Amino acid sequence: MTPADLSQLSASQAAAVLRSGDLTVERLAMACLDRIEARDADIRAWAYLDRDLVLASARALDGSSSRGPLHGLPVGIKDIMQTADMPTQYNSSLYKGHFPTVDAACVSLLRSAGALIFGKTDTVEFAATGRRAATRNPHDLTHGPGGSSSGSAAAVADFQVPLSLGTQTAGSMVRPASFCGVWAMKPTWGLINREGSKIYSNTLDTIGWFARSADDLMLLQDVYDADMGDYPVLPLSGARIAFCQTPAWSKATEATCTALAAAADGLRKAGAIVTDLKLPSEFDALPDQQTLIMRAEGRAAFLADARAHPGQLEPRLQEMVDNTDGHTRAGLLAAYDDAALRRSQFDAIAAGFDAVIAPSAPGEAPLGLEDVGDPVFNGMWTLLHVPTVNVPAFTGPQGLPVGITVIGPRFADRKALAAAKAVGTALGL
Amino acid sequence: MTPADLSQLSASQAAAVLRSGDLTVERLAMACLDRIEARDADIRAWAYLDRDLVLASARALDGSSSRGPLHGLPVGIKDIMQTADMPTQYNSSLYKGHFPTVDAACVSLLRSAGALIFGKTDTVEFAATGRRAATRNPHDLTHGPGGSSSGSAAAVADFQVPLSLGTQTAGSMVRPASFCGVWAMKPTWGLINREGSKIYSNTLDTIGWFARSADDLMLLQDVYDADMGDYPVLPLSGARIAFCQTPAWSKATEATCTALAAAADGLRKAGAIVTDLKLPSEFDALPDQQTLIMRAEGRAAFLADARAHPGQLEPRLQEMVDNTDGHTRAGLLAAYDDAALRRSQFDAIAAGFDAVIAPSAPGEAPLGLEDVGDPVFNGMWTLLHVPTVNVPAFTGPQGLPVGITVIGPRFADRKALAAAKAVGTALGL
Repeated sequence: MTPADLSQLSASQAAAVLRSGDLTVERLAMACLDRIEARDADIRAWAYLDRDLVLASARALDGSSSRGPLHGLPVGIKDIMQTADMPTQYNSSLYKGHFPTVDAACVSLLRSAGALIFGKTDTVEFAATGRRAATRNPHDLTHGPGGSSSGSAAAVADFQVPLSLGTQTAGSMVRPASFCGVWAMKPTWGLINREGSKIYSNTLDTIGWFARSADDLMLLQDVYDADMGDYPVLPLSGARIAFCQTPAWSKATEATCTALAAAADGLRKAGAIVTDLKLPSEFDALPDQQTLIMRAEGRAAFLADARAHPGQLEPRLQEMVDNTDGHTRAGLLAAYDDAALRRSQFDAIAAGFDAVIAPSAPGEAPLGLEDVGDPVFNGMWTLLHVPTVNVPAFTGPQGLPVGITVIGPRFADRKALAAAKAVGTALGL
Repeated sequence: MTPADLSQLSASQAAAVLRSGDLTVERLAMACLDRIEARDADIRAWAYLDRDLVLASARALDGSSSRGPLHGLPVGIKDIMQTADMPTQYNSSLYKGHFPTVDAACVSLLRSAGALIFGKTDTVEFAATGRRAATRNPHDLTHGPGGSSSGSAAAVADFQVPLSLGTQTAGSMVRPASFCGVWAMKPTWGLINREGSKIYSNTLDTIGWFARSADDLMLLQDVYDADMGDYPVLPLSGARIAFCQTPAWSKATEATCTALAAAADGLRKAGAIVTDLKLPSEFDALPDQQTLIMRAEGRAAFLADARAHPGQLEPRLQEMVDNTDGHTRAGLLAAYDDAALRRSQFDAIAAGFDAVIAPSAPGEAPLGLEDVGDPVFNGMWTLLHVPTVNVPAFTGPQGLPVGITVIGPRFADRKALAAAKAVGTALGL
């Protein structure tokens, strides 16, 4: 295989070739590095990448007697996660050159599994708000990749690495995955240890990952999930699939409406029993509750930086610390308690279906890099703590990707991944 | 003042003398160091203490033009919180010499407030289970100080430092405070940023602090709470005080029963309207739910270490990762959802009183260092996310301290602190 061929391999494909002995980790790494060298001036996915370090790590893996489940697979790390051998800079001027010498738990688990920690991907400042990533959308450089996991989504979409980590507080995994046309997994809240990864919102932040196939998402699920287990194969014939417009449906553009309709059509043709799911009216408040909780919890998240660097915190973050929104702790508690009721209620609803499907974003990626897109179709699922998978099945009128989201009840991560895979297959992926 | 006098000062007292200009930070630090030198062979509160570093930091504060609200006040840091200038070792053999070069958010906020970060206090391994702290109870060296914040509680009780940080997942703040006879604040869950502090249980872990007066607890509350504000003075005459035996009352020994009765008596004499609060029967499950959630969430907390160090994780932690308890994720969700209902229910109940009072521990500190004591009287409050304050008002039949807990609804931290102060005053503190 040529280097160009190698960088096109999915993680599962690369793992198979590595296992066969026909490929070294170093050669795979060099293929990815070559791809990045050719594309980086356009895509700008990386906040930190050290070619020599990558190759040294690759050779160390080639020389190692242990063969973990992710042996030699390059993984990009969102630059809000600490890495022992690379700086962690949060895209914040306050953390330029910052270099804590420990791995975040999510990075440590990758290393233990034999993954090749490739580099740090650009992000919206602190994965919150403020400075945008410099990253461009691989499908059209005049558009952004979405945020906040901008570099992680774009690097995978552009075949620079097969896997990457991101985080989601509102829609920072699923939305950039939809904009960039890649698969993404946002697991159940609490499943993955967040230590060493910047926390924006305590009850929302969730670590997830990007890949170019459903099988690749499963590879990482198996590393992160303490409960191993099979992926229940979902035969689409007779499968009960619920389409949920969500309380945000008025925000859906034609691209998304068309994608959802095409998905329903495709699944019906595959034999699925497709129904419309209208959530009870109590769910209408979820998007606003998600915003309130995120911003209220963001006060504690950025208070230490505000105090350590008076007057230097990015204004949009300082406003959060200062609570210019004017929300109250009584309001926060009401949102907490109401969301808790919706969680069990949604689990019960979702248990009646093999999968729930909803939009991943209002439409295609917006023009320009400042607009990271609207997470309105993602925040409610993040708040419900449920697993969501972006299935990159469609293309919009501007030729940019449009994804759909497959959702399961809490802790049904494997079921949701298996359903997403079946849905993707039925839709031609 | 002699060095012995200086080490006896509460934080508020020391702050006043420092402000007056009659005392340098260095002299105060030397007094604490002298006290530690005299007592450390017996008490063993410190996991790391560097005399030269302490004095250099003290001199730097003396030379600084800025005067923060905690200027020069020595604070002990539980050794599960990262410190930029000291190792962080978790009392784990896996982290011997571990030295991440960043401050945890809770430490950074202290530094910004001008505190003197004094040293790292011994802890139960990872503030979870496993290896015990070497610390002894200052009131009787044959007894332990309680855990897991063992060194932090003992160091303050023994006049080695006026303030220290700890954490609580079940009862690791309030119980050692009760055993050691010091004040402790466990704030509302979510109020304090936990980044850089080891997480055991995501939905329970709470950073708190120890001190030798209610006023000193308020000093730190003002630093950590983004919402500043007054402390509402509670006149005890006519105050509505509810005594709650909790579902664990059968575990209370005579020491605790006597303390609670004496507290009720003392508050009645001060004019309070004292009533018994029997929580609805749905609250009976809270202690077991707290244990289930803690141990279930502990799986994710220790998975990375289990994988990075196969066969080397402390057996009791490895059992947690392996889920030898055999709990299920359905059980975990049921506990989450039930606890969420109890939170709003308890807030409504607590709103009917000026304070709720409950036991801090079954009795005096147990004999020996292996038995860190039973957190059965603390876990339900941690699970309810409510602020709790240990008031060190009593002494048991063995001459060891016995505390009581003052509890408020979520985010009523200032109200709970003010009530605890009034209660303490009425009880002779």
